[in-house]
Amino acid sequence: MTHTRTERDTMGAVEVPADRYWGAQTQRSLEHFDIGRDTFVWGRPMVRGLGLLKKCAALANADLGLLDAEVGRAVVRAADEVVRGDLDDHFPLVVFQTGSGTQSNMNANEVIANRAIELLGGELGSKTPVHPNDDVNRSQSSNDTFPTAVHVAVLLELSERLHPAVDALCAALDAKADELGDVVKVGRTHLQDATPVTLRQEIGAWAAQVRDAQADVAHAGERVRALAIGGTAVGTGLNAPEAFGPLVARHLTEQTGIEFHQAGNLFVQLASHDALVAVSSALRTLAGALMKLANDVRWLASGPRTGIGELRIPENEPGSSIMPGKVNPTQSEALTMVVTRVFGNDATVGFAGTQGNFQLNVFTPVMAHAVLESIRLVADACRSFTEHCVVGLSADRDRIADHLAADLMLVTALAPHIGYDAAAAIAKQAHRDGSTLREAALASGAVTADDYDRWVDPRAMTRPD
Amino acid sequence: MTHTRTERDTMGAVEVPADRYWGAQTQRSLEHFDIGRDTFVWGRPMVRGLGLLKKCAALANADLGLLDAEVGRAVVRAADEVVRGDLDDHFPLVVFQTGSGTQSNMNANEVIANRAIELLGGELGSKTPVHPNDDVNRSQSSNDTFPTAVHVAVLLELSERLHPAVDALCAALDAKADELGDVVKVGRTHLQDATPVTLRQEIGAWAAQVRDAQADVAHAGERVRALAIGGTAVGTGLNAPEAFGPLVARHLTEQTGIEFHQAGNLFVQLASHDALVAVSSALRTLAGALMKLANDVRWLASGPRTGIGELRIPENEPGSSIMPGKVNPTQSEALTMVVTRVFGNDATVGFAGTQGNFQLNVFTPVMAHAVLESIRLVADACRSFTEHCVVGLSADRDRIADHLAADLMLVTALAPHIGYDAAAAIAKQAHRDGSTLREAALASGAVTADDYDRWVDPRAMTRPD
Amino acid sequence: MTHTRTERDTMGAVEVPADRYWGAQTQRSLEHFDIGRDTFVWGRPMVRGLGLLKKCAALANADLGLLDAEVGRAVVRAADEVVRGDLDDHFPLVVFQTGSGTQSNMNANEVIANRAIELLGGELGSKTPVHPNDDVNRSQSSNDTFPTAVHVAVLLELSERLHPAVDALCAALDAKADELGDVVKVGRTHLQDATPVTLRQEIGAWAAQVRDAQADVAHAGERVRALAIGGTAVGTGLNAPEAFGPLVARHLTEQTGIEFHQAGNLFVQLASHDALVAVSSALRTLAGALMKLANDVRWLASGPRTGIGELRIPENEPGSSIMPGKVNPTQSEALTMVVTRVFGNDATVGFAGTQGNFQLNVFTPVMAHAVLESIRLVADACRSFTEHCVVGLSADRDRIADHLAADLMLVTALAPHIGYDAAAAIAKQAHRDGSTLREAALASGAVTADDYDRWVDPRAMTRPD
Amino acid sequence: MTHTRTERDTMGAVEVPADRYWGAQTQRSLEHFDIGRDTFVWGRPMVRGLGLLKKCAALANADLGLLDAEVGRAVVRAADEVVRGDLDDHFPLVVFQTGSGTQSNMNANEVIANRAIELLGGELGSKTPVHPNDDVNRSQSSNDTFPTAVHVAVLLELSERLHPAVDALCAALDAKADELGDVVKVGRTHLQDATPVTLRQEIGAWAAQVRDAQADVAHAGERVRALAIGGTAVGTGLNAPEAFGPLVARHLTEQTGIEFHQAGNLFVQLASHDALVAVSSALRTLAGALMKLANDVRWLASGPRTGIGELRIPENEPGSSIMPGKVNPTQSEALTMVVTRVFGNDATVGFAGTQGNFQLNVFTPVMAHAVLESIRLVADACRSFTEHCVVGLSADRDRIADHLAADLMLVTALAPHIGYDAAAAIAKQAHRDGSTLREAALASGAVTADDYDRWVDPRAMTRPD
Repeated sequence: MTHTRTERDTMGAVEVPADRYWGAQTQRSLEHFDIGRDTFVWGRPMVRGLGLLKKCAALANADLGLLDAEVGRAVVRAADEVVRGDLDDHFPLVVFQTGSGTQSNMNANEVIANRAIELLGGELGSKTPVHPNDDVNRSQSSNDTFPTAVHVAVLLELSERLHPAVDALCAALDAKADELGDVVKVGRTHLQDATPVTLRQEIGAWAAQVRDAQADVAHAGERVRALAIGGTAVGTGLNAPEAFGPLVARHLTEQTGIEFHQAGNLFVQLASHDALVAVSSALRTLAGALMKLANDVRWLASGPRTGIGELRIPENEPGSSIMPGKVNPTQSEALTMVVTRVFGNDATVGFAGTQGNFQLNVFTPVMAHAVLESIRLVADACRSFTEHCVVGLSADRDRIADHLAADLMLVTALAPHIGYDAAAAIAKQAHRDGSTLREAALASGAVTADDYDRWVDPRAMTRPD
Repeated sequence: MTHTRTERDTMGAVEVPADRYWGAQTQRSLEHFDIGRDTFVWGRPMVRGLGLLKKCAALANADLGLLDAEVGRAVVRAADEVVRGDLDDHFPLVVFQTGSGTQSNMNANEVIANRAIELLGGELGSKTPVHPNDDVNRSQSSNDTFPTAVHVAVLLELSERLHPAVDALCAALDAKADELGDVVKVGRTHLQDATPVTLRQEIGAWAAQVRDAQADVAHAGERVRALAIGGTAVGTGLNAPEAFGPLVARHLTEQTGIEFHQAGNLFVQLASHDALVAVSSALRTLAGALMKLANDVRWLASGPRTGIGELRIPENEPGSSIMPGKVNPTQSEALTMVVTRVFGNDATVGFAGTQGNFQLNVFTPVMAHAVLESIRLVADACRSFTEHCVVGLSADRDRIADHLAADLMLVTALAPHIGYDAAAAIAKQAHRDGSTLREAALASGAVTADDYDRWVDPRAMTRPD
Repeated sequence: MTHTRTERDTMGAVEVPADRYWGAQTQRSLEHFDIGRDTFVWGRPMVRGLGLLKKCAALANADLGLLDAEVGRAVVRAADEVVRGDLDDHFPLVVFQTGSGTQSNMNANEVIANRAIELLGGELGSKTPVHPNDDVNRSQSSNDTFPTAVHVAVLLELSERLHPAVDALCAALDAKADELGDVVKVGRTHLQDATPVTLRQEIGAWAAQVRDAQADVAHAGERVRALAIGGTAVGTGLNAPEAFGPLVARHLTEQTGIEFHQAGNLFVQLASHDALVAVSSALRTLAGALMKLANDVRWLASGPRTGIGELRIPENEPGSSIMPGKVNPTQSEALTMVVTRVFGNDATVGFAGTQGNFQLNVFTPVMAHAVLESIRLVADACRSFTEHCVVGLSADRDRIADHLAADLMLVTALAPHIGYDAAAAIAKQAHRDGSTLREAALASGAVTADDYDRWVDPRAMTRPD
Repeated sequence: MTHTRTERDTMGAVEVPADRYWGAQTQRSLEHFDIGRDTFVWGRPMVRGLGLLKKCAALANADLGLLDAEVGRAVVRAADEVVRGDLDDHFPLVVFQTGSGTQSNMNANEVIANRAIELLGGELGSKTPVHPNDDVNRSQSSNDTFPTAVHVAVLLELSERLHPAVDALCAALDAKADELGDVVKVGRTHLQDATPVTLRQEIGAWAAQVRDAQADVAHAGERVRALAIGGTAVGTGLNAPEAFGPLVARHLTEQTGIEFHQAGNLFVQLASHDALVAVSSALRTLAGALMKLANDVRWLASGPRTGIGELRIPENEPGSSIMPGKVNPTQSEALTMVVTRVFGNDATVGFAGTQGNFQLNVFTPVMAHAVLESIRLVADACRSFTEHCVVGLSADRDRIADHLAADLMLVTALAPHIGYDAAAAIAKQAHRDGSTLREAALASGAVTADDYDRWVDPRAMTRPD
């Protein structure tokens, strides 16, 4: 039998576990929203975001003389504990709750209020000398604090988790391009043999596509710097001094080292979350670039004997429970599975983003969760793919050379000299009788051996820098 | 300068082109909804569906004595012209209009009324002796007629277009499996060489997956037989006799040869269109199966020299404007592009399907359009892929045999005899030193030549029937 | 410092925690796939599914004399512990791993083997007398076992979790329809006042739509009964006796009380997972129906004073951290957020389902996870919405009556008597001058007071049964 | 019987209609890709884009001395006719063709070559003195020209069609905000009455959200300026002089007035189309903003008597075929239907964008088509919504005032003075007994009449500038 204490809110008394700081509203949410509890309890990034927001709100309220100095210090100290993760066990709520995140905002208010009360020697649940609404939530509404905390969490995750992981991936690709770059190989379009490329070009294109997509994520992140704080209930800022929002933004910038500012139009920040939609779709673009990369790697490594087999991937684990000795491109598989999840998360975010009404969009928690999940997954999968696949890639130079020698599309180099139609006839003839392109070219009478050897130079055809 | 005549509705007079049967409401829609006119004017299937519905409604009203006999005959005759396509030029409206399809319902009412008036020697626009609302729309509302016409159109398109095309594809695959079925080849999992299969098994799996998905479409089609007709404005059937809906359904069954019935709950038919959602998602599953098929074909045909190259596809056209002699898997490409479009259409339908409120879903036209488009595209693409790709597929038996001989995963046949770990060691050794599996097996000392030859029999390993 | 023991696989030795049953391959996966660890470790349903599969495979192998009797009994006993959840801490792997689920299959093989070894007094890691591949995985491959375990998990979750929750929701709606059914109220189409309906009809339509969608889920579930087991590596069933698959299916049926059978075409079961795609899209349809329901409830409860306000929802918690006394439709919000997540999961599943190649689809884990998550969320959210919203719904009969009295669309009852055009003129006049419909009708001279009162009877207009 | 002439390509002779300029490859595509012919023939934007590209390529080739001067002039003149639309009937191909757009590139090459031949007095089909490949396609491949033409088409459509339409919408919203801006009204969060806002704030937020999304589209458009031209077959630029690509970009800039440049990494431009993905997802964000706007308008206009009814929309057409006098928010409906379509198109584009392999993405045509369709639909729907809805919006000031007077959430203004808990008690009491907030506040004893009137000033609560 758990010990409890009585907490109260405007609806009356509720029993809460005696060893938890949360209050009546958190407890009500816990009882009314038992949805996906195993995996949908908010994790570190959101709790940290809420802690940072509450700390900076307390600092701003103190700046403005709206909070007793001692109360203010206690609130800041309690909020710091939330930021550090010391109180994660006191944030038991799930994503699927009120659509404004009110219950998680109140969870933060209640935990911080009770912890501050404790620090000040008061009685848990007494709301004295620290009231969750009148003090911790002072000058705030869930409608502006929750999206603000989400923005803080998203930008921190982007800057601490996503971008470093993508940077590391691109750096590894660059290093691999340097290592293998001189290799000339068959290019492929429509899955069919085409004119040659170098491995530097092929690997470089992967990195370039990923970097372009990463730049899109970074640009979308710019929108996230704009915060709802100061808008309070409907965007008008009722009950908050005009200076409050900008002050909170300034404190958040100081606390995180990331630039934040109060949004130009606060109504928009409550009624919609298009900055999250933009980040989500940029993550989708990035995921698409990663799918291209992961697919190219596994197809180039396909075989070992009856596929393309031009690249070799590290053998990290046995591949099959029934086929002895099999090695599979499992890092590509994990990464592409992550891609499909990111696409799904983006579908969630895009849909939810359309469903605002009037002064509020009540799909904020599910949008926040999906964006944070996508960031986490892409970052983790990039790290894994980099360390356990890219770094260990090698080229099967013999096989690549054999393939290049067989490539009929080297004929393209002849077209400017003998015309498209004559060149096509040569390639078709070689295909028909299994001869080499050189044999067919000479047999055609359209090209001399000298011309052929001068014109058909695979390395030159790649136009290496 | 076009000649016009004056038409009237409850909002007043409107000028319409003198050579068109439509009336004031169609004209108003034409002027107020100039959205995507190039490609979003309703086509044959919906106009035919509206014609059939209006014909059968007139027959039902006549059965019930609600329509003057002569008027009834004229309305039926005019509706028949709509069904046949004679009046397609009189249906100028686009998909993006009122969300109930009211304007297209009125388009049908107005065209049929005026044409019937003409047949009866009256004056166009006079609404005498045939009124578009009081006569042609008698016992009906847009809210029940439009979804009914959609259901009629969808089932006709499924039965006349989609299922025959999918049947033809599966029949062609069956024939190809018979033609090439004896070929034993490398199976591939994770894109890597695996234990062998026959081409009968490989091609047969494509056909089986497509057929399973087709069965899903057929099952979803069952829900489409249930019609909204008789529900009128909000589902209560106000202003329609109870017998009207079932009578219309009976006439529709007679006219089309497809079984229809009035839905059990008419409110649901107006407030949501989950039958369309179900058809759309079944089409998505079918599209997914086609993507697997199209991708397998193009990868198996990849090369011709540096890919897998086990299948050969017909050379239907030059493949490249710059690379002479190139042949590409263009039918696979067209089909997989259709797949992505069907996925998009399904996203549209799924989203729109959630957005009903109270007694009506006002996304009916866009849902109907997307479902009909998907049906058309899948059917057309299946026909194209069948005729221009599947029928002409052939196997490169030499290459297939070479691949099979090289396949290290034949080692799997040894595992039950010598254990997984010993078998793995043999495969790894062969991979390391480039030897054949047989060589490595005998070298290992774990297997005698006799045992090897008895145990490692690729054809037997495929367990052909 | 954690104690470890040495485990081996075909790639060599690995240190694993001494207090865990897992072996080398699980440990390798743990080290190579650190992706989304916080929330993507497989939970109960999949572990239970793997346990059931391994138990039934052991029973089948024993039936066929392929497993030593004592070993067989130990394996069954160990598998039973997995089924019960006693060994959940020994399943540490995440969703994003090898795309065939091989590592989770090996996790089950290794845990069961070591636990069985322990039961038989052997040494952990010795593979004696129970080998994870040769014994626990006997007659199996990851390619057939993993999707089989997924099917088992999905059907158990559908039958134990989803259907009971949806049944409870529909029963609560039915009870509410009985309780409030006599209320006649304004119907609404295009969000605009329309002809009347009863609350029985309105609530009944919600339940009917949900039930239709639930039937789609049940039908999709039928496909899930077909199991891949017996197909082994590529679908041919190499290394498994023909009787093995059907035997496992029979044991699974006995163990779960749910009918299972071996699939007709085993190749299809490995190369694609369209049964999961079908379940996912049926869940999406169900989610769409729930969105309509949740939206209708919250709009009908909007206000309390300046919205529609015809329904009253339970006051479960304070609604706002800044607006005192506010009550919000939070259960609707949680439910509709779940809907957007289910849509996202379905996008993941649909996409992943297209990406199979040759004999295998390597997106199985992400598909399984998304389907299981959707089932869990829909079930939980239905339960929550039922208990905390539907059960407590009440009608504001005064407001409903006021609305009905003001409804101009009662004019529709006049149309069959005086014609659409004359009726429209009356409604427009009332709208213009703010008069009641009755006043405007009598003023028009087209209707007598007696006729009006006889024709315009809102309750009769709803056509209650 | 149509007259034909014989055209030839590398596969042999083909009969084409005598009155068409296209050649053998166009004709082959026409025969092999009969997919969605009714609505998927490329329209103006793509044909114009191809014409511009071919014109500028000819100019660049001429600059570089690669094209005979007279031939060059004839090619430019023919291409100009394509640009102007004179030859649209000679572009019969559909979207679903080869995935590189090769057949449409060849269609342009063939039409321009034959028309140039005609201008030079030659014989159609003779390829003399203008060869479709060797001259019109000189220095080009479909793989670089087709995506280049797509980029040109997309930027032209964005600048000529989309942005002006969105600008007009925002200007109309601004004007409406000016016209109605002084109105103070109930704000709504969670669909429930909340603290007040002005119509300027409400309408201004719609415009601000749309403008933010438009800025995202514009930013995504920046990526589209980068062109693939010069990359030829695989990105290496084989057979094109280094100067060719930059020259074409310069000519395109001159011809269109839009800045274009050759992309930094040409390999990426062929292998992926993330610029199109980015535009598509920005269009999705914009569509989401439009959905919010359209939904707010129709909900605020709901009624006319039993909904919210604070806004009045123009009566453009009769709303119902059965309910006389009904007016519906049809412009909102058309716009929101467009939104669902844009979401579907974006799903198509996002999916297709992931499916590139090696040096080419073969989903270019379907991506291009979907993006162009979304641009067209959003532009058209914005125009329609602006002209037929926004411009004619008016406010029902009486109803708005009544609502404001009833709003219990004005209590929020009391909270900073008497505390959240006391304020909540007042609001709850008023809700319970139906009293006004002022009555309940005074009855509570917590507030004097003077204080109440000073603190609860709805206009001041909106914090108008």
